[in-house]
Amino acid sequence: MPHADPGEPHKINLPEADMPREWYNIQADLPKPLSPPLDPRTGQPVDPAALARIFPEAIVAQEMTMERWVGIPEEVVERLLLFRPTPLRRARALEQALNTPARIYYKDESVSPAGSHKLNTAIAQAYYNKQAGITRIATETGAGQWGSSLALACQMFGIKLKVYMVRISFKQKPFRKLLMQTWGAECVASPSTDTACGRKVLEEMPDTPGSLGIAISEAVEDAVTTENTRYALGSVLNHVLLHQTIIGLEAQKQMAIVNRYPDVVIGCCGGGSNFAGIAFPFLRDKIHGKNVRILGVEPAACPTLTRGEFAYDFGDLSGMTPLLPMFTLGHRFVPPAVHAGGLRYHGMAPLVSRVYADGLMEATSVQQLACYEAGILWARTEGFVPAPETTHAIAAVIQEAEKAREEGREKNILFCYSGHGLLDLAGYDAYLSGKLANYELPQAEIDKALEANAGFPKLP
Amino acid sequence: MPHADPGEPHKINLPEADMPREWYNIQADLPKPLSPPLDPRTGQPVDPAALARIFPEAIVAQEMTMERWVGIPEEVVERLLLFRPTPLRRARALEQALNTPARIYYKDESVSPAGSHKLNTAIAQAYYNKQAGITRIATETGAGQWGSSLALACQMFGIKLKVYMVRISFKQKPFRKLLMQTWGAECVASPSTDTACGRKVLEEMPDTPGSLGIAISEAVEDAVTTENTRYALGSVLNHVLLHQTIIGLEAQKQMAIVNRYPDVVIGCCGGGSNFAGIAFPFLRDKIHGKNVRILGVEPAACPTLTRGEFAYDFGDLSGMTPLLPMFTLGHRFVPPAVHAGGLRYHGMAPLVSRVYADGLMEATSVQQLACYEAGILWARTEGFVPAPETTHAIAAVIQEAEKAREEGREKNILFCYSGHGLLDLAGYDAYLSGKLANYELPQAEIDKALEANAGFPKLP
Repeated sequence: MPHADPGEPHKINLPEADMPREWYNIQADLPKPLSPPLDPRTGQPVDPAALARIFPEAIVAQEMTMERWVGIPEEVVERLLLFRPTPLRRARALEQALNTPARIYYKDESVSPAGSHKLNTAIAQAYYNKQAGITRIATETGAGQWGSSLALACQMFGIKLKVYMVRISFKQKPFRKLLMQTWGAECVASPSTDTACGRKVLEEMPDTPGSLGIAISEAVEDAVTTENTRYALGSVLNHVLLHQTIIGLEAQKQMAIVNRYPDVVIGCCGGGSNFAGIAFPFLRDKIHGKNVRILGVEPAACPTLTRGEFAYDFGDLSGMTPLLPMFTLGHRFVPPAVHAGGLRYHGMAPLVSRVYADGLMEATSVQQLACYEAGILWARTEGFVPAPETTHAIAAVIQEAEKAREEGREKNILFCYSGHGLLDLAGYDAYLSGKLANYELPQAEIDKALEANAGFPKLP
Repeated sequence: MPHADPGEPHKINLPEADMPREWYNIQADLPKPLSPPLDPRTGQPVDPAALARIFPEAIVAQEMTMERWVGIPEEVVERLLLFRPTPLRRARALEQALNTPARIYYKDESVSPAGSHKLNTAIAQAYYNKQAGITRIATETGAGQWGSSLALACQMFGIKLKVYMVRISFKQKPFRKLLMQTWGAECVASPSTDTACGRKVLEEMPDTPGSLGIAISEAVEDAVTTENTRYALGSVLNHVLLHQTIIGLEAQKQMAIVNRYPDVVIGCCGGGSNFAGIAFPFLRDKIHGKNVRILGVEPAACPTLTRGEFAYDFGDLSGMTPLLPMFTLGHRFVPPAVHAGGLRYHGMAPLVSRVYADGLMEATSVQQLACYEAGILWARTEGFVPAPETTHAIAAVIQEAEKAREEGREKNILFCYSGHGLLDLAGYDAYLSGKLANYELPQAEIDKALEANAGFPKLP
């Protein structure tokens, strides 16, 4: 029986004055410190000065800092207030449909103008680039959530933007390109003929669906070869996860408003940024003794945490990035063309990888059909149409809620509703008309991709 | 110089407990009463029993009632709370871009799961049909905002839905059809071969872009010829406008929270429902002596208020509806295929027509290019991408704000941000790539369409 909880609102709004003015840096609380990124040529920790060719110095400093709290600049606060604090909602209609005693709360990041959590870090990164006098940024995007968010953020600060969009998503989601154009950015399909590494990939694999790894190579090459241009990444790196912690910090305050604490915190995992955003503030509680489960959900077609190995690997296909300590399927791994384009990344954020390796969180994977089934149930009960990425979290939420019903146990579930699917309806159409399939990833494919990493430095 | 107004939030949220529990019926306050709908065969007022073939009785009663306040059923309240109260936002970034002393407030109806204000009445109408034991509804839709909203509402109450979607919008906005399917509805392009009047139109005008008038004919025919089926309309009629007044009632409470009152209230006008929704509660104040301007904005390509005549006319192309007292371009008028599909209607709601005829509101029309220009400026300052319909209101808001700057006068502008444009990006693409044009409507076209009305009863 679902709980009536009379008096508890459907939407728990946080006053603007209570929006956090500091981000939370989990590095200050990690039981084991992060291994440093390595220079692939020397095998030694990367010189921050080298990173400054790619990122502005303030970003490099945030990548390295061990401070627990990092202040959010006033100009960033002002732009975040366009859509933040985001509502924490109670999925009462879904609870009723599942007849579960679990309470399902979701932090609704889909209300951002760009439709996902990505704008949180896009605004911060555009700001720090602007402060450093940078006039142009190059970036990659998968499903286009990151590219469109950065397009809006760059528009806010008067910075030019070029986006390399993974080819399969470029085809599946043409509206995201139009959205980037509406906000004034240039967007091309990746691999493209605009970069040397793009041309090389096109020669080797002319029919490739593309991947985040390939698109990152192109964007980094663009940034280091074009005047007054820097690169920006929408996930994986420490500073990106830092900027996303505003999600979980707000959610903590909102759960407190209704006197609840989650028994389990759930997020979908691609590069790891929305997951870390909702989870890290609660992980801090867990590190300090609180009893809370943390669950990451990834696609079965790209099972980085559940089937990858924890090792040093490149962040991109061509090896233009430093070596990062992460769970990885190998940088040569090109994930199948599932609709959840934002989760098609061979690696996992080093910080998420670290806490997973240390047993502080759980991970599970879900097949595409189960995700769409969950997404349809959500859309037909809660009304809002979730992004294909977000349906991964929803599928796991439904499992947890059904388990609660079977066990007859109360449970508070909190998850990150990372984005809406209004620009991803072609995937729903394919699912509803029976054109989608699951994808069983052969172990041999992972093994083969990881072979390319044979001589890499080992993790300590 | 824009006002800083320190302490005034970007988003003014209303607690759920303060969401109105009654709709406001402007008929109770009209200086001159509405002329009744007429039966075209007799020229006499329509018998309510005849309307009950088309609508459930509770809806017919709401169409006629003179009660000032009409209670919102608890089951409707519960569903509205999925997304209501909607935020009232301050467009500070736009104010700064325009360097205007005007304060610009917008009531954000785009946050509904279906992306527009239409869900407000869709939920109510689906509920009353369910109460009456109706199991299937037929309706028309222009841009698809109404069809998708009713699809979700019917899904909520377990009612089947068939949507006749205006052909040009069906082509321009394929994602809206997918959205309806995601929520379980059937959607066909209108004119269709599924109805007698659809087949007749296809014979006469095989290349027609379609129109709301044609689609209404098809949906009404479907409803009266199919078992246990009723028709539902997304605008124009009194009960629809009644359900939309929750917009303005909430906005009044939210403006009061920040101690402001609007000098001018603005909405775009197609059939008139979002306009009435924001405007009627303020019109009540005006009728009782308050000094507030009310401004409706329509497309130059379909200038019902500014170039139509106030007369009895059919609500649809084929003459299946009663004769309604309204500003009209003639029921045979097929508007040019502008992107603001939701505004392509030959008539105007009788209640809006009445208050316009009585000088209680102003009206203006805007060309398509000026609307997209305003929409782009909005998207690049406020972030959110407005629906093509909504850009009409924005264009007028910008004019008012610029006038305030030129006159050096303070002014509080309030408008209804009726919907988002995330499923209308093809229009933005066409505009940005220079493929859109304005449309100068020849007077002869209007005159010719109105000729078909020659023998109709005259308004008293």
